[in-house]
Amino acid sequence: MRYILPLFLSLLFSCSTSAQNYIGKQKDIDQILSNVALFSSCIMDKNTQGIVDSYTVDGKIFPDQREIMEGSEPLFKYWAPAEGYTTVLHKVTPQEIQIVKKTAYDYGIYEGKTERPDGSVSSWQGKYVIVWKKVGKDWKIYLDIWNRSPE
Amino acid sequence: MRYILPLFLSLLFSCSTSAQNYIGKQKDIDQILSNVALFSSCIMDKNTQGIVDSYTVDGKIFPDQREIMEGSEPLFKYWAPAEGYTTVLHKVTPQEIQIVKKTAYDYGIYEGKTERPDGSVSSWQGKYVIVWKKVGKDWKIYLDIWNRSPE
Repeated sequence: MRYILPLFLSLLFSCSTSAQNYIGKQKDIDQILSNVALFSSCIMDKNTQGIVDSYTVDGKIFPDQREIMEGSEPLFKYWAPAEGYTTVLHKVTPQEIQIVKKTAYDYGIYEGKTERPDGSVSSWQGKYVIVWKKVGKDWKIYLDIWNRSPE
Repeated sequence: MRYILPLFLSLLFSCSTSAQNYIGKQKDIDQILSNVALFSSCIMDKNTQGIVDSYTVDGKIFPDQREIMEGSEPLFKYWAPAEGYTTVLHKVTPQEIQIVKKTAYDYGIYEGKTERPDGSVSSWQGKYVIVWKKVGKDWKIYLDIWNRSPE
């Protein structure tokens, strides 16, 4: 019996460290995690301006099969939901975030579900790297690149 | 006539800053640029160990439609050239490199040509984000993600 708690704690610790590795001041990490969750909420709420506001004014996105896009207007056009399509699930799970002065890198996985005009739902998942910049007291996305994971 | 040189310099400056933006000590930037060129040489020379040595020991790659891969063995398997295929051109053009302490981010475009077993050649191009880490006096790739640009 005395071995169960250490074993449990050891498993818990090894699981949490292999899953997530956050390096930096807790306040910065928390701000980034909060912004990650807010980004997903904006996608699900079709709040396109909210999505664009997640980026620095010179923020860049790297969508597959497209050129690098920069600036609020191209980002707004890219993120505006297509007519009749609704992202019913958008979830981002950072695996590692490291703060280095006023820059941070973050990588992890994302997953989602989109409801099509005919009511059918497609699921998708991928992985990403984000470079964040501290702007005032907030953190904004400067570079955002992703691609798909296997089905 | 006196206006021509300032105009020329001004044009030259604006061209070079729009194309490339390297922020950090020249020595670090030069090392990264040299390693970028070396990576392409290793690809074209089918020097798979050289490619793997470009990464930190915990370096991660994010190929499209695959899971995140980490460590020398998975990276070696991924980068080993397929039988009969030769990358006859591999060129990486960093658009921005910023050094922040012992970390750097770098984004830009890549292009290449692959000769197939039947002698035909395919061209491809894409964009990437790399997070570099300074290891001793050298810079190694820690995160490497890319996807395709339009044809």
